[in-house]
Amino acid sequence: MPESPRSDRRERWREIIFEAETPAGRRFDIALLWLIGLSVVCVMLESVPAVRRDYAEPLLAAEWAFTILFTAEYILRLCVVRHPLRYARSFYGIIDLLSVLPTYLMMFFPGTQALLVIRVLRMLRMFRVFKMVRHVNGAEMLVRALYGARAKITVFFSFMLAISLVSGTLMYLIEGPQGGFSSIPTGVYWAVVTITTLGFGDITPVTPLGRLLTSVLALTGYAVIAVPTGILTSELSKLEGDDTSDACPSCGVHGHLPDARFCRRCGAPMS
Amino acid sequence: MPESPRSDRRERWREIIFEAETPAGRRFDIALLWLIGLSVVCVMLESVPAVRRDYAEPLLAAEWAFTILFTAEYILRLCVVRHPLRYARSFYGIIDLLSVLPTYLMMFFPGTQALLVIRVLRMLRMFRVFKMVRHVNGAEMLVRALYGARAKITVFFSFMLAISLVSGTLMYLIEGPQGGFSSIPTGVYWAVVTITTLGFGDITPVTPLGRLLTSVLALTGYAVIAVPTGILTSELSKLEGDDTSDACPSCGVHGHLPDARFCRRCGAPMS
Amino acid sequence: MPESPRSDRRERWREIIFEAETPAGRRFDIALLWLIGLSVVCVMLESVPAVRRDYAEPLLAAEWAFTILFTAEYILRLCVVRHPLRYARSFYGIIDLLSVLPTYLMMFFPGTQALLVIRVLRMLRMFRVFKMVRHVNGAEMLVRALYGARAKITVFFSFMLAISLVSGTLMYLIEGPQGGFSSIPTGVYWAVVTITTLGFGDITPVTPLGRLLTSVLALTGYAVIAVPTGILTSELSKLEGDDTSDACPSCGVHGHLPDARFCRRCGAPMS
Amino acid sequence: MPESPRSDRRERWREIIFEAETPAGRRFDIALLWLIGLSVVCVMLESVPAVRRDYAEPLLAAEWAFTILFTAEYILRLCVVRHPLRYARSFYGIIDLLSVLPTYLMMFFPGTQALLVIRVLRMLRMFRVFKMVRHVNGAEMLVRALYGARAKITVFFSFMLAISLVSGTLMYLIEGPQGGFSSIPTGVYWAVVTITTLGFGDITPVTPLGRLLTSVLALTGYAVIAVPTGILTSELSKLEGDDTSDACPSCGVHGHLPDARFCRRCGAPMS
Repeated sequence: MPESPRSDRRERWREIIFEAETPAGRRFDIALLWLIGLSVVCVMLESVPAVRRDYAEPLLAAEWAFTILFTAEYILRLCVVRHPLRYARSFYGIIDLLSVLPTYLMMFFPGTQALLVIRVLRMLRMFRVFKMVRHVNGAEMLVRALYGARAKITVFFSFMLAISLVSGTLMYLIEGPQGGFSSIPTGVYWAVVTITTLGFGDITPVTPLGRLLTSVLALTGYAVIAVPTGILTSELSKLEGDDTSDACPSCGVHGHLPDARFCRRCGAPMS
Repeated sequence: MPESPRSDRRERWREIIFEAETPAGRRFDIALLWLIGLSVVCVMLESVPAVRRDYAEPLLAAEWAFTILFTAEYILRLCVVRHPLRYARSFYGIIDLLSVLPTYLMMFFPGTQALLVIRVLRMLRMFRVFKMVRHVNGAEMLVRALYGARAKITVFFSFMLAISLVSGTLMYLIEGPQGGFSSIPTGVYWAVVTITTLGFGDITPVTPLGRLLTSVLALTGYAVIAVPTGILTSELSKLEGDDTSDACPSCGVHGHLPDARFCRRCGAPMS
Repeated sequence: MPESPRSDRRERWREIIFEAETPAGRRFDIALLWLIGLSVVCVMLESVPAVRRDYAEPLLAAEWAFTILFTAEYILRLCVVRHPLRYARSFYGIIDLLSVLPTYLMMFFPGTQALLVIRVLRMLRMFRVFKMVRHVNGAEMLVRALYGARAKITVFFSFMLAISLVSGTLMYLIEGPQGGFSSIPTGVYWAVVTITTLGFGDITPVTPLGRLLTSVLALTGYAVIAVPTGILTSELSKLEGDDTSDACPSCGVHGHLPDARFCRRCGAPMS
Repeated sequence: MPESPRSDRRERWREIIFEAETPAGRRFDIALLWLIGLSVVCVMLESVPAVRRDYAEPLLAAEWAFTILFTAEYILRLCVVRHPLRYARSFYGIIDLLSVLPTYLMMFFPGTQALLVIRVLRMLRMFRVFKMVRHVNGAEMLVRALYGARAKITVFFSFMLAISLVSGTLMYLIEGPQGGFSSIPTGVYWAVVTITTLGFGDITPVTPLGRLLTSVLALTGYAVIAVPTGILTSELSKLEGDDTSDACPSCGVHGHLPDARFCRRCGAPMS
């Protein structure tokens, strides 16, 4: 089926922008990665009072440069993609749009507080980086392992939450408002900070009973970390095992040893 | 065996309330889950001084609504269950009773401090959530792994406790009361907070020797976490291995691959 | 070989005191465990100023009771053991002696500060608990796994120490004395507290560069914990694998599957 | 090929200095290890104001003693090594040079602040210790496991960084400058400190929403640690498995049990 030169050029651009198999596509992705990183750094720097005061103009210029580049890229994507509407409504399509909109909105809504939130929205550009994750192999297996262990992880988190609720409530009764445990929600916040071994120290027990309970909670959190680790490790080992076994080309069963010459079910030779 | 319509209806209700296999039973469980969650949130909110002051009346109304609903559920359970007394004396039966009693007690004992403790007792409703855990598969294997490793876990905790006792005592001698280490129990509390890498910072070493000991203790706690994790992971792997192998129905040997059609020892077909 | 009744009685006592296989021996061990625990709690309580002031006399009485009981037990051990001198010079023999000496020494050296150290020495009784560990199976495998991984663990700790030394030195240069990093040892102490994710917060970075380095150090410590865990887990799995395989009764090779009927090397039937 | 006595002597020295197989070479390495350790301790002590004031002269003498010894060792290495230039430009050659230069530079640049940085450079001697790591077996496997898992580790760190950036930005919006979250970079620093469960407590949330987000972030960091641990453990298990299996000398298949005498595929005797 002969294609028109225009459609052919469009297809080549699509490959560069959306795929990463060709050298040009890979270069495009890496350039974009740097641009996104730099623009995120700019938004971060802008939030530092001293930097905003001294470098307001270069930052504004950089912001407009990034915005124009990202807008051009967004329009280009809409042009070359096969289903423009589907892309525009996809997760990354919305992120791509949201990452340029705030700068344009800033011209129309020059309020201070609203401006802050809108400006920070530009940080969403960061999520565009995750489009590159698909290039890294191994990431997919992690996601599969987490997905396979989701039931156990849910039970684990319910358990952690229940311990936090009980401990936080107990500490509210034991230590009371004068110890910083001013309400049950505050106690639960403290219990989460303690059981995860985070330990800010903004609220700390002072009564002997409170300290005993804290010790028990800390040891629980310390030992219980073994649970998600054990779950994920055994899940990863299982997947790892699946990976090394090849399917029989004639009947499709898995689980052959790496050096098997004949299928253990149907006897067909393994390639 | 023909059953009377009344007994039949009772059996249907029992299935809805106590089982989760039928769609109605599942819906009942999910509705209950939401009610319990909301009632726990209400008790938590009530403990926040600002909320209690401004929303005292809606919270009281919600509390009575929850209490009446849970009371109705408790009476219903007693009616439809086959052995009412056995249910009433079971763990969940007691929890179910304790989660409605406090509200009724509040009418008779309107004291302030006692009220606080009684009110907080309503948090026990939370434990009723664990009745739902049985629906999640994978939870049972975790419990079995923890049970299988209980001897090793006990040794590990004794070891941690011994290190904490020794370190806490040493720090009490090294740092002394002026450094915040006012007694051996305080030192032990500090040692537990340190070895679990919690690190509140309410008591910290100031002498060079104390800081050296702290560094050693911190590194110990950091590395020793590998022990419970290693124990549980190898225990889970063992169970995982047991799970994938089925016993032969005729000779009983284990260790067949999941897709084996014939026993690898006696040749009998696997079901 | 006929034994004299006296030697026979002595042997029976030796079994009760030193072994734990007979019911009497087990009861003796458990009673001793409780006594040691209680005596340690007494020493801990005595260090609390409020308790020492109010309960000085009961604590002194308890102390003398424990000392007399432990002295009697020490003399009994010396009498019934086969090689009294070897026991007296063994680790547990010295601990047993050290746990009663301080109370007697207190009569001769009634100084305040010296008294404190001597009194605390009684905490050494705690180590006697570890004699009981041998009853718990699984403990030995842990020790073997740790021993098998000792080379890797040494490398890991050298690596952690090197990172701490470098980070602590860098922070001393970056933050300087005004930020709390008053010397390189202080910086190294801070680095150990940070890399182990302990985070007391007694010394914290304030400069942007210091905070960047802290973030890198924290992420390193967070991820590097995987190393000791991975080492120990794979070591435990290896030992676990050895455990499930039985040795051939005629040639002694290991590694048979659990249901093997014949030795895979010499063909002798497995019992 | 006869060698001249001079070349022979040089070769013997080379073995002592660069290798560790001979007893003399091992003794040389251990002596050097102690010297490096002591010199690092001296630099650390010198940074403590109280020590520098009281022991300035002995520290200076020790510093010159170490410098002369290390200079002699550096010259010796250059003399006995086969390719002096290649050694001088290697990583350890540069470290060896950098660890003696600062003391000589101190004579020419007696400035205070510059002196501090130069003096601290002597800490680089520490890296020379890693030359000894090659003696420890097991270290190489760790490095191979980390190398094998590098793609997954990169994805994991990108993920952690993305969560930190998002959470830090959100906290900057929620808590604002009055809560200590003065800019997005500060918020990101706080998020890293929180997600790694470090928790200094220098910046802590005070609003209910901020505390809720903190709890979520802490639980995420607590559970997500399972990911690098799981990755490394399964990687180590894989390598461990490769290690125990030898290839058949005639057909090359892997996966033999450690005591196999015949190849399980071609029947050729295993060496």
